[in-house]
Amino acid sequence: MRIDVVSIFPEYLAALDLSLIGKARRDGVLDIRIHDLRDATTDRHRTVDDTPYGGGAGMVMKPEPWAQALESVQASASVPRPTLVVPSPAGAVFDQAMAHDFAELDHLVFACGRYEGIDERAIDWARELFDVRPVSLGDYVLNGGEVAVLAMVEAVGRLIPGVVGNPASLVEESHADGLLEYPVYTKPSSWRGREVPEVLLSGNHARIAQWRRLEQVRRTAQRRPDLLSGLDAPALTDEEHAAVREAGTGPDDARR
Amino acid sequence: MRIDVVSIFPEYLAALDLSLIGKARRDGVLDIRIHDLRDATTDRHRTVDDTPYGGGAGMVMKPEPWAQALESVQASASVPRPTLVVPSPAGAVFDQAMAHDFAELDHLVFACGRYEGIDERAIDWARELFDVRPVSLGDYVLNGGEVAVLAMVEAVGRLIPGVVGNPASLVEESHADGLLEYPVYTKPSSWRGREVPEVLLSGNHARIAQWRRLEQVRRTAQRRPDLLSGLDAPALTDEEHAAVREAGTGPDDARR
Repeated sequence: MRIDVVSIFPEYLAALDLSLIGKARRDGVLDIRIHDLRDATTDRHRTVDDTPYGGGAGMVMKPEPWAQALESVQASASVPRPTLVVPSPAGAVFDQAMAHDFAELDHLVFACGRYEGIDERAIDWARELFDVRPVSLGDYVLNGGEVAVLAMVEAVGRLIPGVVGNPASLVEESHADGLLEYPVYTKPSSWRGREVPEVLLSGNHARIAQWRRLEQVRRTAQRRPDLLSGLDAPALTDEEHAAVREAGTGPDDARR
Repeated sequence: MRIDVVSIFPEYLAALDLSLIGKARRDGVLDIRIHDLRDATTDRHRTVDDTPYGGGAGMVMKPEPWAQALESVQASASVPRPTLVVPSPAGAVFDQAMAHDFAELDHLVFACGRYEGIDERAIDWARELFDVRPVSLGDYVLNGGEVAVLAMVEAVGRLIPGVVGNPASLVEESHADGLLEYPVYTKPSSWRGREVPEVLLSGNHARIAQWRRLEQVRRTAQRRPDLLSGLDAPALTDEEHAAVREAGTGPDDARR
């Protein structure tokens, strides 16, 4: 998979050299190219921003450097019309379904805005060359798109075959089945007076699966009741329904 | 504000030396300390993980290194009971309100889990010393907590007085008023055949404010209709209501 990132802070993207994503790049599974937006400027000061029309605080990113940088990426694109993700708090919210959609693509381009954002005409112009997607990492405000790109590349990259060593890890994780993950435990079985739940030492796989699923339901009801309402199948057991009712009347575990 | 981050990949947190957050650290506004979890191990291999009790894919982080690392942070804490954020897809979802809550705190500690997560007993144990908050960056799965910490520290840090140069920038941004940001424009007024909307060149501040608010409503209706339902005041004008109706019947802009 080819990924291009355009930013005025290329050094922010150095984290993409680390750990699983870094290894996937060295293995040739991910072809990630980082571009400095300032290389697409032509003035001596390498200017990328100016004051906003209509007034207001902050600066706006000028359209021409973006057009130059994106034309350059498009000239070597691996598909006729790559997807251009513009991280922005004014975008659709990134989620695991979107990560899976992006993981199916051959070529993903990220345009990291800074300051008050990119001149809207550059975004409109880009629709001629790219499938443009304004995407928000979540309902919070960051200083720029770089950290959002680190998160999205990690979430998308780990779904590409060959990036995560053991594909089984991808199956049993949060949101894969619409529920939060169950709590996990490792050695020693007794630690500082705290014991691993007995069932996990039993070797009884059916009981372990049942316990884990009940913990998933309980935790989801406590911390993310919104996810339960979206859950269709399989239906909850009587014991799981009881856990939901109990969570609904108890304190919010996520707030403790 | 004091922030501690414990991780097995301290080099991921190097981005906290950059840009506004980096400057705030050098200015003494943010006291951010990065700790390598492996420094809290005692065996020759500096082991931090082991196989999960009850079976399943992946590895689980052992409790004792976490207890050692967190005890060490707590010994120099700036408050009796710091808040310990554990990034996890099984946590409550981070948002701007939570960012504001965290920005009020004197001491924030982040525990970056990797693999299948941290032994749950370490989390339970930590509640004796910390106000423990499992927090999710969003409904997607990352390889570990490090990128989530970069995002949360940026979102929280920029709310601390003295971090963002112009505090006015914080007011006019997405989510501050429950609506997405309006589109922004800068020089030149005519660019590649595309013009800046005439109203923004008019100098008529009342008309500009009215246009921007209408664009906010239109964009929110197109990309994030869920936010409109949570909007209480001020009520929409007739023109804004019309924009919402129009967006509801048109294509989803965020998908184009």
